[in-house]
Amino acid sequence: MNDDRIDTGRSETEQAIMDATLRALVKHGYADLSIKNIGTEFEKSTSLLYYHYENKDELLLAFIDYVIDLFVENIDPEAEDPEAELREFVEYVLASEDETGDCEDTVHRIPFREGPRAFQRVIFELRTQTTHNDAYRRKFRRMESHVIDTIATLIEREMEMGRYRELNAEMMAENLMAFLFRSLDVQVTGTRPESKHAMRESVYFLLDNVMPKGGRPTDAALRDANTDSDDDTDT
Amino acid sequence: MNDDRIDTGRSETEQAIMDATLRALVKHGYADLSIKNIGTEFEKSTSLLYYHYENKDELLLAFIDYVIDLFVENIDPEAEDPEAELREFVEYVLASEDETGDCEDTVHRIPFREGPRAFQRVIFELRTQTTHNDAYRRKFRRMESHVIDTIATLIEREMEMGRYRELNAEMMAENLMAFLFRSLDVQVTGTRPESKHAMRESVYFLLDNVMPKGGRPTDAALRDANTDSDDDTDT
Repeated sequence: MNDDRIDTGRSETEQAIMDATLRALVKHGYADLSIKNIGTEFEKSTSLLYYHYENKDELLLAFIDYVIDLFVENIDPEAEDPEAELREFVEYVLASEDETGDCEDTVHRIPFREGPRAFQRVIFELRTQTTHNDAYRRKFRRMESHVIDTIATLIEREMEMGRYRELNAEMMAENLMAFLFRSLDVQVTGTRPESKHAMRESVYFLLDNVMPKGGRPTDAALRDANTDSDDDTDT
Repeated sequence: MNDDRIDTGRSETEQAIMDATLRALVKHGYADLSIKNIGTEFEKSTSLLYYHYENKDELLLAFIDYVIDLFVENIDPEAEDPEAELREFVEYVLASEDETGDCEDTVHRIPFREGPRAFQRVIFELRTQTTHNDAYRRKFRRMESHVIDTIATLIEREMEMGRYRELNAEMMAENLMAFLFRSLDVQVTGTRPESKHAMRESVYFLLDNVMPKGGRPTDAALRDANTDSDDDTDT
């Protein structure tokens, strides 16, 4: 691969359609998404959309598979260094936009040129539709269970290597996911920027202090968690 | 008040319009919501909708104020017993539907006859629109900050009474909110039922073991959190 994309067996045209769908979703949101505005983002003829996908519903189901594949590629249960993999994944989700709205382009596995925020916003919007769409729900259920199971597997591998305490890996994975999910949510919705800092601190409190077995600066971090000054958590 | 509703100074007609909007949102979701299907749920003439609200946008902004008022009424920073208030609030959000989909009607401050789940689903759907709507975002920002500040105030009051450890109340409030939020999310989206149990366990781990000062069965709970059996957490 010469463009850092994950090979998902899609043709070049299908790939271009997926990219056009992403851009249309970022611009218009799910409620106003139409084949027409996907076509506007697509360099070739709109009729090609109908050649590859029967209708908008079918196109969106393929698109959900596409974004889920790309998101799930960010965490590998068999990574050589489980803790490094876990830390890279949480940083991918926590990664912040700076004040001008530009993305900090520090994570190498960003799937779209629009950056991680645009990608995460699309996942967030599509996921909301699970309330009304059983097919979407099944796809997102598989994705979330896969991510949580993978986090739990990485934690268990650290435990087996004697680097993490003996703890309930699945519960730790659920807690990490709750913090990451809330962080993702407040970044996408913009409802409470303060929570983003609090979630970053909470994630690293688990990674640095709760899970590892000794040998880490737990006392200092515990003291920090007992103060109200969390302004410097992003440095 | 003879119908357990909170008096928000709305006329009977405006109240009926808010109820009709809720039912329309529950049935159709935000993407398919229209004045027409709000009118179908409304017992009187659709033209009355336009008499009270200029258009759908104006009606929805009033509706958001209405649901936020009702949600925020579920937690009072000045409640006589701060811990009881906190526990009642978390139970309101965690409250589960049984397997038939019916609501456990055990919490007395349920604002709508459709039950807490319908109400929470509506909040969830409207909140998603913050991505595209600044006015919505400001309203939800105020709501979330109010809820988190209120949780922190209740925790601080317990600390002052010497019943809670000296800890970062704001951080605890953010963590509780993250768990409650994830629980609400998986209940509404149906993506991962297992996470609902995990979040209930995590919320009560904070309330029963992390925050209180001695005198509680912390050892047993800590041991339980270190096993993989969390099937009986809802009993």
